Amino acid sequence: MGADEPGPGTQPWNHGVLRSFNERTLLEALRAAGTSSRAELARTTGLSKPTVSAALANLERAGLVRQTGEVSRSQGRGRAAVLYEANPAAGFVVGVDVGREWIRAAAADLDGTIVGRRDAPNTARTASAMVRGAARLARTVVEETGLDWAQVVHTVVGSPGVTDPGTHRVRYAANLPGWGRSGLFERLRDELGTGLDVVNDANLAALGEYAVGAGQGSRLFAYLWIGTGLGAGLVADGKLFRGGHGAAGEIGYLPMSPLPVENEASADRGTQAEAAARRGTLEGAVSADAVVRLAHAMGMTGARSAKDVFAAARAADAVACRVVEHEAGRLAHAVAALAAVVDPELVVLGGGIGRNTDLLLGPLRSTLRDLTPLRPRVVPSALGDDAVLLGAVATAADVARDRVFNSRVR
Amino acid sequence: MGADEPGPGTQPWNHGVLRSFNERTLLEALRAAGTSSRAELARTTGLSKPTVSAALANLERAGLVRQTGEVSRSQGRGRAAVLYEANPAAGFVVGVDVGREWIRAAAADLDGTIVGRRDAPNTARTASAMVRGAARLARTVVEETGLDWAQVVHTVVGSPGVTDPGTHRVRYAANLPGWGRSGLFERLRDELGTGLDVVNDANLAALGEYAVGAGQGSRLFAYLWIGTGLGAGLVADGKLFRGGHGAAGEIGYLPMSPLPVENEASADRGTQAEAAARRGTLEGAVSADAVVRLAHAMGMTGARSAKDVFAAARAADAVACRVVEHEAGRLAHAVAALAAVVDPELVVLGGGIGRNTDLLLGPLRSTLRDLTPLRPRVVPSALGDDAVLLGAVATAADVARDRVFNSRVR
Repeated sequence: MGADEPGPGTQPWNHGVLRSFNERTLLEALRAAGTSSRAELARTTGLSKPTVSAALANLERAGLVRQTGEVSRSQGRGRAAVLYEANPAAGFVVGVDVGREWIRAAAADLDGTIVGRRDAPNTARTASAMVRGAARLARTVVEETGLDWAQVVHTVVGSPGVTDPGTHRVRYAANLPGWGRSGLFERLRDELGTGLDVVNDANLAALGEYAVGAGQGSRLFAYLWIGTGLGAGLVADGKLFRGGHGAAGEIGYLPMSPLPVENEASADRGTQAEAAARRGTLEGAVSADAVVRLAHAMGMTGARSAKDVFAAARAADAVACRVVEHEAGRLAHAVAALAAVVDPELVVLGGGIGRNTDLLLGPLRSTLRDLTPLRPRVVPSALGDDAVLLGAVATAADVARDRVFNSRVR
Repeated sequence: MGADEPGPGTQPWNHGVLRSFNERTLLEALRAAGTSSRAELARTTGLSKPTVSAALANLERAGLVRQTGEVSRSQGRGRAAVLYEANPAAGFVVGVDVGREWIRAAAADLDGTIVGRRDAPNTARTASAMVRGAARLARTVVEETGLDWAQVVHTVVGSPGVTDPGTHRVRYAANLPGWGRSGLFERLRDELGTGLDVVNDANLAALGEYAVGAGQGSRLFAYLWIGTGLGAGLVADGKLFRGGHGAAGEIGYLPMSPLPVENEASADRGTQAEAAARRGTLEGAVSADAVVRLAHAMGMTGARSAKDVFAAARAADAVACRVVEHEAGRLAHAVAALAAVVDPELVVLGGGIGRNTDLLLGPLRSTLRDLTPLRPRVVPSALGDDAVLLGAVATAADVARDRVFNSRVR
């Protein structure tokens, strides 16, 4: 996330770079291990004790490391050993989830530990009002924790659509009108006065599940979000896989496939392209609206929302159960498409539709068995509605740790 | 590809590691720049002149760098400057492409420059005969160049199917019966006595296009192979994207999507899973056999191969042109699926069907415009039938450079 790692080709390797690299290694080791003594750190990192001492002194001076106490040595000889820990309060971050119905904001320290949180209904009618509302909520959360806004190093905002890293414009955010307008996020950045990244919400949910949810420890997994729309976030080796233009995981655009040979040869009207356009995209076939549409088509005329349909299925309504089975079958296609292209070891289901795993998982897995030999494990989201927000916080903390280190040490 | 790069968490950073890291940096700079003087190397790498001199002396002693001559200094003062180059003959590699009809083998130096090449028809009837044939061909090529087999450091074999990095077994190689048997590649490794990797052929073709073909310089691209089967290789930042189980890019398994709501609700016979299985996979809809099947169904009963169909289309046969247009439309779905999941900036078309870009590209691009707003650039393969072989050679050279460096310097 924008970290400037030293490495071959980017800068010369001299002893100055080596020193700051050792300091970073030490800081990361301290973060991973928790409270440690000099001797323990020398063991974990392989650095010599004098190097560890010098690096700790520098990090302490920079406010990135602090002493937390002492332990008496096991043999009882000599002075007690000083214990150190990474100072999580060396900087703070804010994560914001701008959804169609709710705006959620949380403040956290450099470890990503939440120190404040607030959700508010999204009542704004224009995109700029929404940006102002998000900024206000962020400041309120930080104020409520007793922090000064100047301590906030970085903000990450989750948004539908694809953000272009070059222009900071959001494309394909059909559910938030005006949200793609040029200059909108420049204004937010000015208003916040912190570093700012605007990241696709499914991508942030994936990072949230990786950091503290169902994706922990997975080398390659996909978060599949099914709600008012359809999207996916891919995390490979702990990093977001963004694609060539930031649109990786936009599987809502997966077109419904062409008909098989025999149908095509006979039912040959219009061009193939026209026919395909008529058949539409996967998003149109699996999102909340599609569930309601299918329920109506199958005779469940009273259903007003996808929630109604799932509730009826839970009450063993026969038609609702068929609708849910169909939905699960189509989601199996989404999983099969992910498997055929990127082969994730795990798929995490989330979103307003995806959360109904009690009803969906059985038929989804059974359809998957018939569809493809490439079958990732499919599990429910562990974070539910908080996935985007927690992903925003984790991402902001990652960026902030680098920024704080680079500004205070290198 | 198995390189042991030093880095945080993998080993301590001390001056020994720094020295060997500087030597590697220098060797890579020399490889990138070609013949250079000490002063030029100090400028490119940022290393001090004494460090450059010491590192060059070590590399020369190890046989990895050699002197190639002298240039007189521009000012005319002092002694002439010695020129150095990386020694590409410090090791050799072999690449093998085992295809259904041909086995191809090439020997190359550490730069990946081909020094010998031979193609032979694949007449073997059993998998073990095929392995023996591949090994024989590899040895013949090396012999013909006058090299000793002991100079060969690493061999890479391209194969259909998915190779499991743990067991070295090949799965899903339906076109090469017996090829997935356990122990087959252990025997090949024993027979060759070099390092050995067996890699999916579409993946190697992608790496070949990245190294010396249409994918050069692309941050993220997909090689789409359409022939007797369908597969893709993904290259991200110059590295193969293999997926969780080595099956990334196996888009032949992409299922044909479910029917849209209205058809499903009415034509509701059997389970969704059964219906999907009947509709089959994308491979079944776009491979060479599917082209012939569609041609027959549309009345072109004389077509015996996909080649016939494309030839007839080139001769402006109306039905053949319709068949080709349909095929292009289906390939547009494959490209749209790649775009929706990984968002490549470029798709390279190859294989016996994919090579017909003169006929396919126009309708493919036009269908793609109707299908999705996510449209990567689509271009023909630059390497044709040699893509797998050249990818095997480039991959083997990558691995061999690390192996030779690690065995002689570190």
